[in-house]
Order: sequence, then structure tokens, then C-alpha cells
Amino acid sequence: MLETEKNYVYVGKKPFMNYVTGVVMQFTTKGAQEVTIRARGQFIGRAVDVAEVASKRFLEGTVKVAGIEIGSEEFQNEMGRKVRVSSIEITLKKDPQ
Amino acid sequence: MLETEKNYVYVGKKPFMNYVTGVVMQFTTKGAQEVTIRARGQFIGRAVDVAEVASKRFLEGTVKVAGIEIGSEEFQNEMGRKVRVSSIEITLKKDPQ
Repeated sequence: MLETEKNYVYVGKKPFMNYVTGVVMQFTTKGAQEVTIRARGQFIGRAVDVAEVASKRFLEGTVKVAGIEIGSEEFQNEMGRKVRVSSIEITLKKDPQ
Repeated sequence: MLETEKNYVYVGKKPFMNYVTGVVMQFTTKGAQEVTIRARGQFIGRAVDVAEVASKRFLEGTVKVAGIEIGSEEFQNEMGRKVRVSSIEITLKKDPQ
């Protein structure tokens, strides 16, 4: 699959179920084989919640966690101070079995 | 390595650097080959921060992320309602190179 064809869901401050529905629809309506859930900073825990609820409640037995990566970016804030923010990427994949 | 010999650091509400120091000391003072950082619910983002700061700032080039797992537990709260809480486990490993 080309990088440009990857299906991303970015988790932020919208209502929780928006993200779960987003993930579920990619698999069910759009026929995606793989969806990657991304978040930064304070939304990392939420991304894990989205992945768990989507894969265990809504898509149970059809989708599994295929990979998880964490990372971090450093940048300067308005005060000129170095700030580090962590990020996470959780990839869900259609389970052939 | 036996399950009982695993080195765990549970991330919660104590000061952030306590956990980073805990991880770093396991590798440096106690000679651990592997340390697993665990957290639940609201502390998941913090566990990612601890893993990133420990592996990229304090132990750069000597330790790497060897595996990440997410999960969830369901239980009943005091009101008798079903509650689901996500969890994460991040395993850092000594990098032989």
C-alpha cells in the first residue's frame, strides 16, 4: 500500500465516539484493510481508548492491533523554551481468520 | 527471563521524574536487560512520556523500545455500572549495538 493511501484517524478533543465511528467506518464502509490512529500529548490515552473500543467492541474478531509506535518531537514554544511532546501511532488491521 | 524477574515501573500520579529515574536506575544500577513501563487510564500518556524521556534523553543509544502492548479491563464501579479502562505496557531493552 502506498504511503498516500494510508488511512489515518487523528484523535483530539472532539467527542470520543466521533473517532471510534471514524475508525469503524473506514473498515466497514470504505473497505480499508488497515487504519492508523494517531495522537499527540494529552490525547495519547484517548487514542488507546479509541483503538480498544473500536477493535474489541465494534469490530471484535475482525480487526486486530497490528503495530504500535511511540515517538516524540521537540520544538520551541512562544517563550523560546524547548518543549517535548510524545506521540503514538496504533495500526489496526483486518484479521483474515 | 522468568516472569517473576521482570522489572516493572508503574506510572501514576507521583512526580514525573520519579518514574524516569526509576527506569534509568533499573538499567544503570541494577543492570536490568529489560524494563517494562505500565500504566492505566489517564496515566497512559505519561507512561509514553516516561519511555521517551528515559530512552531518548537519559539512555540514548543504549536502550530502545522493544515492544508496546495495549489492552483494557472491564469492571463494575461503585454504582454497579460497567466501566472500561485501557492500559499500556512499553518494554525498553538494552540495545547491544
